[in-house]
Amino acid sequence: MSANWGHNIELSLFGESHGQAIGIVIGNLPAGVRLDMDAIRWFMKRRAPGQNKMSTPRQEKDEVQIVSGLLDGVTTGAPLCAMIQNSDQHSRDYSELKVKMRPGHSDYPAYVKYHGYNDVRGGGHFSGRLTAPLVFAGSVARQILQEKGIVIGAHIKRIHNIEEPSFPVDVDDDLLKQLSSQLYPVLDQHIFSQMQNEIEEARMHQDSVGGMIECAIINVPAGIGNPFFDSIESHLSSLLFSIPAVKSVSFGSGEDITKMYGHEANDSYYYQNGQVKTKTNHNGGITGGISNGMPIIVNVGIKPTPSISQLQQTVNVETQTDTQIQVKGRHDPCIVPRAVVVVESMVALAILDMIR
Amino acid sequence: MSANWGHNIELSLFGESHGQAIGIVIGNLPAGVRLDMDAIRWFMKRRAPGQNKMSTPRQEKDEVQIVSGLLDGVTTGAPLCAMIQNSDQHSRDYSELKVKMRPGHSDYPAYVKYHGYNDVRGGGHFSGRLTAPLVFAGSVARQILQEKGIVIGAHIKRIHNIEEPSFPVDVDDDLLKQLSSQLYPVLDQHIFSQMQNEIEEARMHQDSVGGMIECAIINVPAGIGNPFFDSIESHLSSLLFSIPAVKSVSFGSGEDITKMYGHEANDSYYYQNGQVKTKTNHNGGITGGISNGMPIIVNVGIKPTPSISQLQQTVNVETQTDTQIQVKGRHDPCIVPRAVVVVESMVALAILDMIR
Amino acid sequence: MSANWGHNIELSLFGESHGQAIGIVIGNLPAGVRLDMDAIRWFMKRRAPGQNKMSTPRQEKDEVQIVSGLLDGVTTGAPLCAMIQNSDQHSRDYSELKVKMRPGHSDYPAYVKYHGYNDVRGGGHFSGRLTAPLVFAGSVARQILQEKGIVIGAHIKRIHNIEEPSFPVDVDDDLLKQLSSQLYPVLDQHIFSQMQNEIEEARMHQDSVGGMIECAIINVPAGIGNPFFDSIESHLSSLLFSIPAVKSVSFGSGEDITKMYGHEANDSYYYQNGQVKTKTNHNGGITGGISNGMPIIVNVGIKPTPSISQLQQTVNVETQTDTQIQVKGRHDPCIVPRAVVVVESMVALAILDMIR
Amino acid sequence: MSANWGHNIELSLFGESHGQAIGIVIGNLPAGVRLDMDAIRWFMKRRAPGQNKMSTPRQEKDEVQIVSGLLDGVTTGAPLCAMIQNSDQHSRDYSELKVKMRPGHSDYPAYVKYHGYNDVRGGGHFSGRLTAPLVFAGSVARQILQEKGIVIGAHIKRIHNIEEPSFPVDVDDDLLKQLSSQLYPVLDQHIFSQMQNEIEEARMHQDSVGGMIECAIINVPAGIGNPFFDSIESHLSSLLFSIPAVKSVSFGSGEDITKMYGHEANDSYYYQNGQVKTKTNHNGGITGGISNGMPIIVNVGIKPTPSISQLQQTVNVETQTDTQIQVKGRHDPCIVPRAVVVVESMVALAILDMIR
Repeated sequence: MSANWGHNIELSLFGESHGQAIGIVIGNLPAGVRLDMDAIRWFMKRRAPGQNKMSTPRQEKDEVQIVSGLLDGVTTGAPLCAMIQNSDQHSRDYSELKVKMRPGHSDYPAYVKYHGYNDVRGGGHFSGRLTAPLVFAGSVARQILQEKGIVIGAHIKRIHNIEEPSFPVDVDDDLLKQLSSQLYPVLDQHIFSQMQNEIEEARMHQDSVGGMIECAIINVPAGIGNPFFDSIESHLSSLLFSIPAVKSVSFGSGEDITKMYGHEANDSYYYQNGQVKTKTNHNGGITGGISNGMPIIVNVGIKPTPSISQLQQTVNVETQTDTQIQVKGRHDPCIVPRAVVVVESMVALAILDMIR
Repeated sequence: MSANWGHNIELSLFGESHGQAIGIVIGNLPAGVRLDMDAIRWFMKRRAPGQNKMSTPRQEKDEVQIVSGLLDGVTTGAPLCAMIQNSDQHSRDYSELKVKMRPGHSDYPAYVKYHGYNDVRGGGHFSGRLTAPLVFAGSVARQILQEKGIVIGAHIKRIHNIEEPSFPVDVDDDLLKQLSSQLYPVLDQHIFSQMQNEIEEARMHQDSVGGMIECAIINVPAGIGNPFFDSIESHLSSLLFSIPAVKSVSFGSGEDITKMYGHEANDSYYYQNGQVKTKTNHNGGITGGISNGMPIIVNVGIKPTPSISQLQQTVNVETQTDTQIQVKGRHDPCIVPRAVVVVESMVALAILDMIR
Repeated sequence: MSANWGHNIELSLFGESHGQAIGIVIGNLPAGVRLDMDAIRWFMKRRAPGQNKMSTPRQEKDEVQIVSGLLDGVTTGAPLCAMIQNSDQHSRDYSELKVKMRPGHSDYPAYVKYHGYNDVRGGGHFSGRLTAPLVFAGSVARQILQEKGIVIGAHIKRIHNIEEPSFPVDVDDDLLKQLSSQLYPVLDQHIFSQMQNEIEEARMHQDSVGGMIECAIINVPAGIGNPFFDSIESHLSSLLFSIPAVKSVSFGSGEDITKMYGHEANDSYYYQNGQVKTKTNHNGGITGGISNGMPIIVNVGIKPTPSISQLQQTVNVETQTDTQIQVKGRHDPCIVPRAVVVVESMVALAILDMIR
Repeated sequence: MSANWGHNIELSLFGESHGQAIGIVIGNLPAGVRLDMDAIRWFMKRRAPGQNKMSTPRQEKDEVQIVSGLLDGVTTGAPLCAMIQNSDQHSRDYSELKVKMRPGHSDYPAYVKYHGYNDVRGGGHFSGRLTAPLVFAGSVARQILQEKGIVIGAHIKRIHNIEEPSFPVDVDDDLLKQLSSQLYPVLDQHIFSQMQNEIEEARMHQDSVGGMIECAIINVPAGIGNPFFDSIESHLSSLLFSIPAVKSVSFGSGEDITKMYGHEANDSYYYQNGQVKTKTNHNGGITGGISNGMPIIVNVGIKPTPSISQLQQTVNVETQTDTQIQVKGRHDPCIVPRAVVVVESMVALAILDMIR
């Protein structure tokens, strides 16, 4: 498995769900950045499990231990390595998981790719738990972006069929900061309670649901990106599709733009206080692969959690026969709420990698 | 601007719409591959403009001249450079385009990024014409894949609001080859005539429409890809978002999977003749970022052509005032039909890059 | 600072001399490799300080703790993270080092690059101590190479002016394994005692000496490498020049080949038992950037240890005045003996990266 | 074969000695650079063959045709593609070269790697002729560097055993520009005539000689480079070892530094007009992999031209028997003089790639 990503900001991710620890090495960070550990802890908390019945009861403190690259709270320019010890592993029998492939999971492709040597306990390196170090890295990135005036925020746009409005064209700093201060950010709290009901209902049926997250990045200057082969869309999507369960990525009005007429989809330019703006933002702040100065808008579709405790049909790769499986353990009936900060973090890393 | 992409298969793309020539260098190709130039010409023809009223009347023969890397019709292992001379450039006055930014186009971000030095004639390096060398490269890639039994095909799934069915779960070689033999591949010719009407209507209104392309890759063995940061989804999307006008990429059932319950979205495994299969394919042949042996399904959303001859509001960056623009020239009212083979080509390159 | 290197085998190095720990993440390792921890410990020991008066008396057990990627002693295919806790840090006053730049060291360039935020304690991330995780990674690499029959070994070819013979043309498995079993490998033990005297004399004068290491890799199949821009020479040198104090890299007869006539330098081919061989090996097994099947020979020149306790002229960057410095602490009067296994390790990583 | 190199400045090289054309694509160049074509032609001329009896009588005008990326003489920011048509190919029988491997050349490793499909005519893609596009690219790079005050120059330091002095510690702009204006740059014209005699003598004996080139880069600011894994030494050597016939690369005093004592090798710092300087420059302007502001000095060792018309022992890979070969054609008895500008060009590209 590859561990590394990045050109300017380098990431190297390691660890398994039930191993000793998980962590990340971040290369090419600027020296002299004082890390706001409180802010980092808040972002980590937004991702952490066990906070309510929407998520897995697994309790992990997700306490980040910084191994290198930081001196007196300030980055030294050397690679920053952060680790999180795994504390709440349930030691149980994983022999069934080695041979019965959970549908919708990485189990079968990983079994083939790693010839059966992959760590299946809790999903191993494929576990959603690996997003914890990514949120740490993203939190560092957004602090650096913040100093350049670039702010990131996201909201739960849809859970199953319950949808709230999209970002307004003039999404601003205040709105994004207010969203970031919510444990589960939404624009409309009333719709959120319907979303919660939807999740609760799925949980009652030993089932799960997915949804959609919309993320905005404001104040990215015009002129960032490339036509071939490193458009902003390419760069962001390559990181976003590394988040487990993400199956769609779109920009601006996303799939809706494909149903518009050209005269609607073309965001008209105008000057506002000497700055070029567009009246609409169907292109999500990007044309020709390059930022145009408007908010960058990205939509991320997340499938229902594959871990459900219903009985499912599957195969046993040892006996090479059809069989059934009931996935035990602690599952989120919907990971969308916890994934919001993961999306924000990946976006922060991708944008920081492009603008340095 | 970056020219390069790739790890195993390397691409370096060059040229402008109204420059001397466009072309591509392909590195790391295997030696000893006899190129089927007839097949390549057919793929190039599917992309070429001027074939009917759905596309721009610009006439370009798109004749590929191979500069290096081929001896007696067989690859030598040295970088393969292919060039296409630009023949049908209209020499006209481009001074308006240098200052009036066409909405929905790369003009404004490119103006900022390149400080006004970018070639605006016909869109320069941002022109859709740059996809011609990409189709050449993709055609070479699919010949190499074909020898491994891997076959790629796509269809126009939707034009504006006119939609045809998706691929069946058991999409096979025959269906894909039959699609590839069509100039504009569809599963249902009856719906295609409605699509054509939709495009014609947009053209009559000096407007444009977009749509959706669904692409399948069959016989990719299980075990290709990575969880972080180079999932098949990441790898494919990074190339697909380099195609001008692409605004969304999704896999399998795409955004629909986010509206399913877990028990629906989880594709159940079973054995068929000793091979692991799934009953449904909502995950598009990929779980955990890695292929599971089922057809890889990717959906690509394309916005309406930004070039429309209606009067549009925009800015003049020289005078820094609001103004209007009427985009003259030869435009496609819908580029989706010509984009099908471009999508297939990008997919071929991405998959070849991953499996070598 | 960048942490990452590699295309197939990925490395991400972290840690500082006097920080909590040093370590490395290795990506893209094959699954199913049983690590021979005894062999690894032996290679680590060859690099470790404190074994005799030739090296620094700092005592570090260099005990490797594997954080991820290994289950029951076998690689899982997930990134392998290995850490070494720093135990024997002397906590002393480093304020002088922050402003007085040690000649021959990274201090001044690092001060400029990291704006004074770099960790200066013991050299921080620039410390030779960072080669410990590299030896770990190289030891893993050579186990994988060993299974392909590829064997690596090196010897101290020169200390200051005391030189021993070069490898014979037919350097073989037995010789290389015998060298690897020596703490400080040499071909001629008699000359080694002269080398030791040379080092001891330098130590007595509070001075230091450098030298030359010759490394051989046998059984690399012909056909590995590239003419542009990733020749074996390019690939190896890019890693070798990451070893602190390395100032020259050459292949085969190295600088001597530049003094030969063409008829001498051209290694003539002949068949031996159906295999193509060369009578001489002045080109070090590489022509045109590609292996020819003969032993790959690389020579690595190492400068005298910059840490000497003599009084030296330097600058104080705070007061911006000339000053003097006496570098205290535990120093190696010659790092060449300990560097042999570091060179072998880097070569193992570079070759493994190229042949997978 | 790989075609690509680079992170910021991207290179993609293509073409064969006796193919239609050779060329290069340069990605990520800044927009708005007016190319000084006269300067470029001069650099190309310094590399071109056929200028005197020291070099091959092959006549190639090496006229560069710019295919893309340039408008009205100014870079647009789009990939710059430059081509050189091959005009003076002798069409003769190459069937002997396909089976008889020339000693010291890439023939045999290429035969294995490309399964006999590689173009052997004139060495194909391995030909020294491929350095012509590299000199073009390097000439563009040094114009961009020049605007930042960075100047590059080199001299023939040694031919066979005839050696001239090294650069003085305070090598400056004037000296480097004067060297660049020479067709074959040397510091001491008297020694150059001895060098010419040495080459002439080798030519008379149907033999060849090699030598050493010393290159200086001045005004690179302190703080460029990395400790791991992208030191300036790593970055420069990876390009320099792509020049055919280069077998050694060293920095500063090179192999001589390995014979010094620490108190000699450590370049002492002092302030001169508020700037940090070193009294000596044995480390060649680089410590810890990072520039210290002093001239960067790199030494490049070049082996004798492998093409000699003496009868040589070799193998026939078709009959798998030992045989003899007499390499016909037009050869340089010494390529060192023509290689000087190639070294300068590679250094320019490597430094530009690091400082952007």
